[in-house]
Amino acid sequence: MSRKNLPLAKVYRLLEPGPVVLVTTARGDSRDIMAMSWHTMLEFEPPLVGCVISNRNHSFKLLKATRECVINLPAVALTEQVVGCGNTSGARVDKFARFGLTPVAAAFVGAPLIAECFAQLECRVVDTRMVPKYCFFVLEVVKAWIDPAVKAPRTLHHRGRGRFMVAGAEIKLKSKMK
Amino acid sequence: MSRKNLPLAKVYRLLEPGPVVLVTTARGDSRDIMAMSWHTMLEFEPPLVGCVISNRNHSFKLLKATRECVINLPAVALTEQVVGCGNTSGARVDKFARFGLTPVAAAFVGAPLIAECFAQLECRVVDTRMVPKYCFFVLEVVKAWIDPAVKAPRTLHHRGRGRFMVAGAEIKLKSKMK
Repeated sequence: MSRKNLPLAKVYRLLEPGPVVLVTTARGDSRDIMAMSWHTMLEFEPPLVGCVISNRNHSFKLLKATRECVINLPAVALTEQVVGCGNTSGARVDKFARFGLTPVAAAFVGAPLIAECFAQLECRVVDTRMVPKYCFFVLEVVKAWIDPAVKAPRTLHHRGRGRFMVAGAEIKLKSKMK
Repeated sequence: MSRKNLPLAKVYRLLEPGPVVLVTTARGDSRDIMAMSWHTMLEFEPPLVGCVISNRNHSFKLLKATRECVINLPAVALTEQVVGCGNTSGARVDKFARFGLTPVAAAFVGAPLIAECFAQLECRVVDTRMVPKYCFFVLEVVKAWIDPAVKAPRTLHHRGRGRFMVAGAEIKLKSKMK
């Protein structure tokens, strides 16, 4: 898989459609991968992302301590790994090893990129006001990577209980909206 | 279109996949419809939804004043209406009339349901802490409606600049996750 810079102003185009993402975190010898659907864009540029990372997850501890993570975007070929990551705890299992995923050093954060994903967003925590009540973190994307070969990614969209909608056809209408 | 009660515990299954939604608001003679992709679940039950409604939108004023709205879910047959709503201002145009959408009285809130949508979530604003900085509202869904005929809705997912991914095939894996 190749990887090139994605302009930060285009990050919203990846997250607006609501794909399941894999969030990576790392601290010392400990690292984790978490499947996540509860995220939203908050600002175009610099791109801000809001997301819920439950305090029952190992990732919560790592994110709180390091204030850094990577949002990795898997396509349909990684469905089993996504479900696997969602059903195991990073406190007991190294998910990279267990699910055959390849960690790659990020440019600006300590958490690893997942090489098999078609895009990776390096993030820093910038606001934790809503963490006590909702486990809601505000992240700033500081660097974005994309596989230039992937034009219309077949992303996964969770409908609950292991049911996923896979991204279908694309249509285009005239629009003044971003 | 028929409409039945959807248990509140199942609301997340509609919003997790990240569809474009139409938010309705109303106050006195004024009402609005806004196309929105920047939303996320915050809690399963009672269902809490976080969403960004820009203070440049007419909907922002109506929502701030009334603290009530409806999140309506359109499928692909409403694509032109969705783009139309996104490209006009409710301050100058009655979007129901302009786009041929039918307002129906909600059970618990003053904003109308859109009859042509396959699901409608009646919401109250419960937290405005993040509004000054991010225009981010926390909504509680107090009543949910669904068309029982729609099992795998062909929702719209915005990829930017009028490009929409239409919900494709569904796959199901064994999972312990909600």
